[in-house]
Amino acid sequence: MILHDFLPSGNGYKIRLLCACLGLNVTLKEYDITKGETHTESFLAINPNGKIPVLELDNGQCLSESNAILLYLTEQNHLTQQHQSALLPADPILKARVYQWLFWEQYSHEPNIASPRFWLTHNAMTDLKKRMLPDRIQQGHVALKLMDDTLAQHTFLVGDAMTLADICLFPYTHVAEEGGAYQLSEYPNIQRWIKQIEALDWFIPITQG
Amino acid sequence: MILHDFLPSGNGYKIRLLCACLGLNVTLKEYDITKGETHTESFLAINPNGKIPVLELDNGQCLSESNAILLYLTEQNHLTQQHQSALLPADPILKARVYQWLFWEQYSHEPNIASPRFWLTHNAMTDLKKRMLPDRIQQGHVALKLMDDTLAQHTFLVGDAMTLADICLFPYTHVAEEGGAYQLSEYPNIQRWIKQIEALDWFIPITQG
Ligand SMILES: N[C@@H](CCC(=O)N[C@@H](CS)C(=O)NCC(=O)O)C(=O)O
Ligand SMILES: N[C@@H](CCC(=O)N[C@@H](CS)C(=O)NCC(=O)O)C(=O)O
Repeated sequence: MILHDFLPSGNGYKIRLLCACLGLNVTLKEYDITKGETHTESFLAINPNGKIPVLELDNGQCLSESNAILLYLTEQNHLTQQHQSALLPADPILKARVYQWLFWEQYSHEPNIASPRFWLTHNAMTDLKKRMLPDRIQQGHVALKLMDDTLAQHTFLVGDAMTLADICLFPYTHVAEEGGAYQLSEYPNIQRWIKQIEALDWFIPITQG
Repeated sequence: MILHDFLPSGNGYKIRLLCACLGLNVTLKEYDITKGETHTESFLAINPNGKIPVLELDNGQCLSESNAILLYLTEQNHLTQQHQSALLPADPILKARVYQWLFWEQYSHEPNIASPRFWLTHNAMTDLKKRMLPDRIQQGHVALKLMDDTLAQHTFLVGDAMTLADICLFPYTHVAEEGGAYQLSEYPNIQRWIKQIEALDWFIPITQG
């Protein structure tokens, strides 16, 4: 499998983290998104939406949307991998809670936490984005508080075992402070959760391919 | 089951449409989101994220995030309902394509198509939103074009059978013109697809509970 990716991307890191967890080998092919490298004709052929990450399967088919790739890889490896039962619980309601966090991440977390980080750290600030920032940051605090409150009740986002919800939410949460919009010291349960994930034996940092 | 909902909401309509397709009965409980009715203490107890739709199961447990509810209801009814095999294909790659559209809807479609419609039709326009609008509309056209190009290749979004991807994308697409930001006549394949879904025998319109 080939992962078409950009190393600082949290969306790409979700896949790299899952592969590390499941022990899957994936070849990295890097693109610089700040130079428009995901809008060339050859890239649009693998993802007409012009975004990394894209997982190219051994038969040449290409999947996009980080969270769809997480679900696909976990389902595909459930017979061979020890972690799968925890990552995607068999219980239908717990499984639905994992789905819930995955969609919530795309709608309520990523635009408020990942986008401001990108604008502030990649020199991508425009006048309009500057005006959008206060509202995004306010909603980002709502999102972080929801996670913190949940992590006050149990070890991981869906109960006391790690699931795909944690793999999905870890990447942008653990670098939320980059750019200066957020202070994680306001969210002690999130800080505890980050330390726990970083201590796992298969853990890899965001910039490791 | 109780669906906590707001009738003009496309996110709620996704669930109502799926229930009609699967022949599931659900009791509707309505909230006026324009009056903050999803931010009361009793509502936050069923969804701390303060948003409809919420599906309350018969055992009292509550699920949020429209697309998570779609996946849950489809998986739960796969043994009893005739449509399920088509809605969530057994083939892992086709299933992953359904996931892909569901996440893409939350990230690339809903914010660009549903939000402008809401701002323009519910008197929710602010100065900042007015400035955000051109960029949202430009990205909304990119999203509609991606759907139109896909629907030029096959009858539905994932091949020639209807899936959850169509149930998820139909609601906000078919009312995209409301508010005046989009003209669906620019997207003939989308128009054809809308007519085909509206002609299905179990079809119900957006305002029907
Ligand atoms: N919803 C998508 C979002 C992917 C995304 O936003 N990718 C960014 C990098 S993190 C990208 O490739 N941006 C380049 C562009 O849009 O031109 C996912 O979860 O995979
Ligand atoms: N990602 C959520 C979005 C839900 C959503 O945005 N709900 C809106 C109505 S369509 C709402 O309840 N807004 C009220 C509020 O945020 O105060 C989903 O797919 O269910």
